[in-house]
Order: sequence, then structure tokens, then C-alpha cells
Amino acid sequence: MKDKPVIGITMGDAAGIGPEIIDKAFTSTEVHQVCRPIVIGDANVLNNAQKPAHTNLKIHSLKHLAEALFQPRVIDVYDMHNIELKKLKMGQPQAIAGKASYEYVAKAVELALKGEIDGIATAPINKEALKMAGIKYPGHTEMLAELTGTRDYAMMFVAGSLRVILATIHVSLREACDLIKKESLITTIRLADEMMQKFDIEKARIAVAGLNPHAGEGGLFGHEDIDEIKPAVDSARSIGLNVVGPLPADTLFHRAKEGEFDIVVAMYHDQGCIPIKLLGFDIGVNITVGLPIIRTSVDHGTAYGRAGLMLGTGNPSSLIEAIKLASQLSRNH
Amino acid sequence: MKDKPVIGITMGDAAGIGPEIIDKAFTSTEVHQVCRPIVIGDANVLNNAQKPAHTNLKIHSLKHLAEALFQPRVIDVYDMHNIELKKLKMGQPQAIAGKASYEYVAKAVELALKGEIDGIATAPINKEALKMAGIKYPGHTEMLAELTGTRDYAMMFVAGSLRVILATIHVSLREACDLIKKESLITTIRLADEMMQKFDIEKARIAVAGLNPHAGEGGLFGHEDIDEIKPAVDSARSIGLNVVGPLPADTLFHRAKEGEFDIVVAMYHDQGCIPIKLLGFDIGVNITVGLPIIRTSVDHGTAYGRAGLMLGTGNPSSLIEAIKLASQLSRNH
Repeated sequence: MKDKPVIGITMGDAAGIGPEIIDKAFTSTEVHQVCRPIVIGDANVLNNAQKPAHTNLKIHSLKHLAEALFQPRVIDVYDMHNIELKKLKMGQPQAIAGKASYEYVAKAVELALKGEIDGIATAPINKEALKMAGIKYPGHTEMLAELTGTRDYAMMFVAGSLRVILATIHVSLREACDLIKKESLITTIRLADEMMQKFDIEKARIAVAGLNPHAGEGGLFGHEDIDEIKPAVDSARSIGLNVVGPLPADTLFHRAKEGEFDIVVAMYHDQGCIPIKLLGFDIGVNITVGLPIIRTSVDHGTAYGRAGLMLGTGNPSSLIEAIKLASQLSRNH
Repeated sequence: MKDKPVIGITMGDAAGIGPEIIDKAFTSTEVHQVCRPIVIGDANVLNNAQKPAHTNLKIHSLKHLAEALFQPRVIDVYDMHNIELKKLKMGQPQAIAGKASYEYVAKAVELALKGEIDGIATAPINKEALKMAGIKYPGHTEMLAELTGTRDYAMMFVAGSLRVILATIHVSLREACDLIKKESLITTIRLADEMMQKFDIEKARIAVAGLNPHAGEGGLFGHEDIDEIKPAVDSARSIGLNVVGPLPADTLFHRAKEGEFDIVVAMYHDQGCIPIKLLGFDIGVNITVGLPIIRTSVDHGTAYGRAGLMLGTGNPSSLIEAIKLASQLSRNH
């Protein structure tokens, strides 16, 4: 058996729930069983979060990955020293935390591209905080694509047996309709298949959702299903992919959850995210597909409300799932 | 306590799964406990379906409702004699079954409007079969609206603790975007509140879903959430309704399922139907809101495949739920 993969966990927004759930995740035996975890973040912030997290771990600040101890009850931190604790206001967006959260991701990408870490699991960042720091991204996905120079990428979600990849992301519903085009759909289907191979699924059974109700009902409700989606599916089949569609979206996610398909290609954000959040509220994981590196993420935000109150109610389940999945995927990368 | 309500169960498409699941539903003690059920259909077809249904009930053909026996192990049928069994081809759309299925609904509406029955629960019909009979409706909902002369109506779904009402129904996604207008949304919110009163829920907590991802994220992803939905919610609040929104749709259905809201107003077909089918595949119930009569329905189609094979695998759960709900709602009508 190969050495356990080194997974870099970016600390996310220091004023959010990230540091607390990272501290909690380091107490998970499962995490240490599947990987050698390292935080890319700020040691003082992680230590400060031990109070709400009710953990009592050793925070081991490192300047080089080679110094990592990889021991239970130790949090190895690649320490960026970029948050001044007394200036940090928990539970609200602020420029210092936004800037720092970007720096963790940029460093993690650098380390992953150099092969010093095998995968990245990211804690939540906040768009508002990024904006206050002059960094404009709708989210991690677009940031990671740019940092790695990736053109063809997609957001994917896993919640238990349901896996979903999105054909369009952060655009209005009308614009999503405009963006549903044969060529880009073929790319998304191809990305889905490639990612399924990292899940150890060969000839993945891919289902493509219809855009319109009842997948357009033969042209009665819109033409995109006939004009763009069907040709994309046919074309993907012709190059050997095991794909069907467009299928009526209302019943498709139930069918996929029951095991009929390995992954669903959803046409727009809510079509894919509604079933994922319904099934996987605490255990959902987000994956960026198409990057030259492995990257998974929690499927929730900074939860400023909880983080600000320092209640210790942050749930590390999604982060633990993200770390486990990054470990699994990095083996086939 | 009032007498148990009389619920008319329309037989639906004779070549589909309707007759089989009706026969099975009549063996349910629960059904007889909550109502006095009568089928509006064809006695011979119901008898023929006893083979796959594995039931051995007495089929009691009646010409007038007053003749009904309302006994366990008896299926009272308001017998329309409109299917010639030897001409019926199970498991496929055909004009005779389409025409007959329309006649059951028309008769049920007539009986309900006259007050001879207290509510209607409908078994599935098939649009293709209706079309072959020259009857053009996208489904029951539009048919019922026309038969009762109703202008303001909406489709609603119940799956366990999740209740959803649709602001738009059978139109393309682009057209749904066009149809999201303040005035019609206020009507839908009002219909939701009125129906919740029939559920014995006063001051129902109504949540309105956003149209665009993240409910438009302050105008970043589309303007309908700001221009139409928010004003509709504000206006509905100003007339005393307990409504909030627009809320991001991806997390909203989870929140409603967990009990935070009594009903969700979904903007388009798949937004509302994806979570309903995911949670309530076998137990989902469809309700037409705004009619002068009570009408519930199974949340599935004719299942021609199963019906044609006469396997007896039809699941009566959704129909039983529909009958129970029609009984409950008719008490507050």
C-alpha cells in the first residue's frame, strides 16, 4: 500500500466557522486513517478556535511541509501568519480575513501543483470578505480555475449515493438557458466521466437532466432539450461514453439516488443543488472537476452567525467527508 | 362528529395502473376509516384489474350514488359503462381509454359541484390517450380548472412534511421566467394561505423561493427576484400574510422539510417537483388549489409498462395518501 496521501486543508475565512470545524475534524480517527492532514492557514487562529471547538490539540506551526509530525492530537499548520488575532472580528466579513483566505488557497494550489500535497480540501470562504480585500471571485471554483489556468471545469457535488455535476454555475436562470449549448455540454459529460474514473467507476452511467419540465415534452415546453441537449448526448455516446438523456429532471434525482445512475449532469445551479442539499445537508461535498489537482470542499458557507457567537455548534461532518473524498480521489489522480 | 366524507375516486386511464391500485386501495382499512369511497369509472375494468391486484372484492355497480353500500370488501362504482373490455389494450394509449378517463373526471366534477360527493381523488390519466380522443389538456389541473370555470388556480404537492405550490406549471423554463410577475405571485401566495387553512394551519408560514441561484444574489444573477418576487412578498405581507422571500432555493426545501415553513412557493415546475419526488416518490400527493371543489391526485403517471404486463406491482400508497388527504381537506371546505 502506498503512503497515505497528504491532504492540505485550507483554513478559509478566519472569522467564519472554518477554524472551528478544522479543529474538530483533527480529532476524527477516520481523518488520520485515510490521510496525512495539514492545514494551510494561521496557527493563532486555529488555536483560538479550540475554545469553541472544545478541543485540546497541539498546534504545530511549520514553515516547510517536511517539518510536519502527522501525529494524532497534533494539528500541523503550514503557517501563513497573515491574521492579527486582536484585529479579527469574528462572525463578519472583513478585508484581512478575505485576503488571508485567498492566500491559503493560492498557497495550497502552489503546493499541489508542485506535488508537495496530494489534494486540497477547502473550508468556507466568503465572497463579501474577498470583495472587501479587492479580490473578485464568485467562489472557490472560479478562483481555482484561474490559479491553475484551467479552461474546462465544472462544479460537482456528492451527497451519499447522489452525485451531480453542473453544466452552468453562477448565472441567472435566463442566462443558464442561453448557455446550454451542445459543445459545452459534451465537455461537461466528458468531465463527469473522467471524474468518475477517479471514483474507481469505469464506464460510468451518466444521466443528463432536461432543461425544461418533462425534458421539454417533445418540444412542447421549450426547444433546448431537442436542439442542444439531445445532440450533445448523442455525440458523447458516439465517442463511447455511457450516457443517456435528456431525462425529466423531476424524477431523475430520485432514480440516481436509488442507484440507476452514477452521476447526473444538471443544467443549472438550483436543479443540481436542490436535491444535493436536501439529501446531504450535513454531509455534502463539493468537488471541482477538470483541475490538474484534486480539490474537494465543504458544501456550506462561513456560518458567520454561529462563528461570531463562538457557540461551538459548527458541524465538521461535511469537512470530514471532503477530506476523506480528497484522499480517495488523490489515489487515482 | 360529522359523517365521514364521500370521496369520489376517478378511475383514470383504463389501460394504466389506475384500476389496479384502486382495487388495492379498497382493501386498506385506513381508507374506509377516513371516508366513504366511491369509484367513478367502469365496473368491468375494475373487476378485470382484480387479477393483477390480487384482490377479491365485490364490485358493486351503481347508477345513482344513493345505492352505494359503503361496506368493507365492496367497491361501489358509479358505473359509466364506457369501456368495452375486449377492445381495451392494456399498457398503451388509446382513444377509448382517453375519452373514458375524461368522462370520469367530468362526472366527478359534476357530482362534487352538486355536493353529492365531498371531494375527488384522481387516478392517473394519459395525455397521449386524451389527445387520441381529441381532448387536449396538458393534464388534470388544466382540465379541472376549465370544468369548474376557475381562473386562479395552482398545483400543489405534499410529500410528508414538505408542501410545495407552483407559481408556473407546464411551460418552458424561459417562459416560466417571463411569467414570474408580481400580481400572479400574490395570487399564488394567497392560494397557498387559503389551502393551508384547509389543512387546519392558521397564519401559515409561507416561504417564497427565489427564481435565480442564491435568489439572484442582490441582482448579480438576474433581476426577477428584486423586480417581481420581493415586491409580491412585501405586498402579501402588507395584507397580513405570514410570508418571507425570495429565499435561495437550494437550501429552502431542506429548511421547509425540517419544519421551518408550512409551504414553499416554487417558481417553476422542476424547482418544486425535484424535492417532492425525491422525498415522496411513493407517497406524494398532488392537489389542485383554487378550485371550488376538493381535488387530490396520485403523484405518478399511468405506468403503462407495469399495467400492460399485469404484474400486480402497482403501488397504491400515493392513491391512499390522496384519498386520506381529500377526506381531511373536505372537512374544512
